[in-house]
Amino acid sequence: MSREFRRLPKRSVSCWIETNPVSGKMDLKFTVTKEDMHSSARAGVLSTPHGAVETPVFMPVGTQGTVKTLSPKDLRDAGAQIVLGNTYHLYLRPGSDVIAEAGGLHSFMSWEGPLLTDSGGYQVFSLADLNKITEDGVTFQSHWDGSYHLFTPEKVIQVQIALGADIIMILDECTPYPCSYEYARRSNDMTLRWAQRCRIEHNNKDGQALFGIVQGSTFPDLRERSAKALVDIGFDGYAIGGLAVGEPKSVMYEMIEAAVAHLPQGHPRYLMGVGKPEDLVRGVSSGLDMFDCVIPTRNGRNGTLFTYRGKLVVKNAEYAKDFEPIDRTCSCYTCRTFTRAYLRHLFHAGEMLAPRLATLHNIHFFLDLMKQMREAILEGCFLSWRTDFEENYANES
Amino acid sequence: MSREFRRLPKRSVSCWIETNPVSGKMDLKFTVTKEDMHSSARAGVLSTPHGAVETPVFMPVGTQGTVKTLSPKDLRDAGAQIVLGNTYHLYLRPGSDVIAEAGGLHSFMSWEGPLLTDSGGYQVFSLADLNKITEDGVTFQSHWDGSYHLFTPEKVIQVQIALGADIIMILDECTPYPCSYEYARRSNDMTLRWAQRCRIEHNNKDGQALFGIVQGSTFPDLRERSAKALVDIGFDGYAIGGLAVGEPKSVMYEMIEAAVAHLPQGHPRYLMGVGKPEDLVRGVSSGLDMFDCVIPTRNGRNGTLFTYRGKLVVKNAEYAKDFEPIDRTCSCYTCRTFTRAYLRHLFHAGEMLAPRLATLHNIHFFLDLMKQMREAILEGCFLSWRTDFEENYANES
Repeated sequence: MSREFRRLPKRSVSCWIETNPVSGKMDLKFTVTKEDMHSSARAGVLSTPHGAVETPVFMPVGTQGTVKTLSPKDLRDAGAQIVLGNTYHLYLRPGSDVIAEAGGLHSFMSWEGPLLTDSGGYQVFSLADLNKITEDGVTFQSHWDGSYHLFTPEKVIQVQIALGADIIMILDECTPYPCSYEYARRSNDMTLRWAQRCRIEHNNKDGQALFGIVQGSTFPDLRERSAKALVDIGFDGYAIGGLAVGEPKSVMYEMIEAAVAHLPQGHPRYLMGVGKPEDLVRGVSSGLDMFDCVIPTRNGRNGTLFTYRGKLVVKNAEYAKDFEPIDRTCSCYTCRTFTRAYLRHLFHAGEMLAPRLATLHNIHFFLDLMKQMREAILEGCFLSWRTDFEENYANES
Repeated sequence: MSREFRRLPKRSVSCWIETNPVSGKMDLKFTVTKEDMHSSARAGVLSTPHGAVETPVFMPVGTQGTVKTLSPKDLRDAGAQIVLGNTYHLYLRPGSDVIAEAGGLHSFMSWEGPLLTDSGGYQVFSLADLNKITEDGVTFQSHWDGSYHLFTPEKVIQVQIALGADIIMILDECTPYPCSYEYARRSNDMTLRWAQRCRIEHNNKDGQALFGIVQGSTFPDLRERSAKALVDIGFDGYAIGGLAVGEPKSVMYEMIEAAVAHLPQGHPRYLMGVGKPEDLVRGVSSGLDMFDCVIPTRNGRNGTLFTYRGKLVVKNAEYAKDFEPIDRTCSCYTCRTFTRAYLRHLFHAGEMLAPRLATLHNIHFFLDLMKQMREAILEGCFLSWRTDFEENYANES
């Protein structure tokens, strides 16, 4: 596959330097600290210009320049290391010009830690009222004011440079499920050509790492073709996209394996938009390092709370006089301070404090889950940790 | 007037004791620390079983067991000393039985500081779908589930005893504006009979202070009659109710003067449901010690922010690229961390963080305003402080 793509100078783990000798800025550096003996799981450290991230890591989603209901202080207190921003939303509102004038997204949202922005591709295909794909890029109509826009590979890189996140993503087409082999193949090839255009536009920009995105729908050979071609182009890290869009879990796991097998050991691997706690455990076992998902925040706003014994729907009548915390073993502010009965009351009374306290708990749970996995990997007991987790966690998916 | 009311044993300042020798619980104690030379303003300390409150004080309104959008930690960090709860709302939802089982409102909402509950009277007359007043009490239909309820003076005391606030209020009829002299006179007399029934039901309960409420609409002689009769019955503190219901400001100030003239020096005086910053300054000048109002929280949720130079509507287009904080001189979390442009973006994007950050700022402003007044009184420069405030503050009312 590599013949189809112009080869750009590749970075190898050993030649990455923490400080760029010209700009003085720190670039991305990824170090695998420990590999698990019985699975592909690994613990590592991802160094960015805004600080180090211990992997495996869950990235809370800050769609519109805020992780819904939480302040940056809440996020830090909950243990968040890196936050994701959505280019599609921020480009439309308040506009990348406003954020650039504010000094970038870090400064605008007052988050001093590492940030990652997606390319907007996923939202263009899932949210925009209209979208038309050509080789050039994708034309779409804003879902909130009806205005027309064109995202080309070059444009999304320029917008992400203006936003200034530590890690930025290529423009890709996220194919729907189900999807014909022929459509998936042609879409995948176009995404790879877009990947190369993004790489050229990015031009190894100081202080911002660029990740490729493996596509290929539910076809292992297309996933392999995509992974190999992206590695040939050469990116700072590799994401797996187009999953958790309706396909069976077994297919999702198969696609992860098909992609990971062809991704380099020394680069971070990011599973986009996934997922449930059991998916994160499975993903870490498969050698993935980074995850993001709206599940903890969205479910929190609806009153669904995660615990190591499964989910708890705090609005239910059974909790009306339950004066226990959500989870006695949890150290989050919500569990240290409030009862299930109080949270239930807040939800029923329509109080804004309810989604906030629930989100805080869920984000803490997802971050703690990753931390527990990291510690188990470092201590060489990931397999037994995973067995324990799966025995206790009521898988309701 | 006092002949109409059975005289109950009165408490005098000097005989109040901090610890009840039987229950071991601490009762309410009010000490005037300093009186202003040029106005009726005074600084004091109100000791309650849940801690001391420095007066004059503003009490954020925690309608349904939470000050909307804020956690107890936010409130403490903003400098809140005492919080108000609404008996009407809490009685209907989650129910005073749930709160009593939780160990009372302090425990239920996890606020360890002093609490005050109103009697529910104001909400019965302003929110309930139907209400019918008889000598016995008021029958009303819940505004959210249509159920019928009867609040008698005895019932609201029992409910407030179950909620367990440090300061509780008598049942009163809050007359509408405008109101005929005859209606106001008869209503006032009934409120005074209810006051006496509340006092008997309360029976000097340990650890919960009971405040009377001066009514009398816009008629100075009725206000005087009400104040004198309440003092004859004997309460731990005296509130002024039925104001800021549509009457001109000058009338409100006149009614405050008419009531305060007949209230004892040694007891706390509380102006209910008022008000705007300029009203608080005027109220303190008139010798009032306690205030509550939904203005800082409600206006905050709508994007109206208070500063010492007047109000700022942060949603306005002029702030789209304004990277200054709301108020450079303010030390609240919002002002220390975020810009006007960011807050404007959050409001326009419909993010829940927006009302929260705005509420946090407004509550901080109202608390800081009271603190500045207290310090000015203690330092003997209240008059010049007030002149400075009024010169700077753009009175938009």
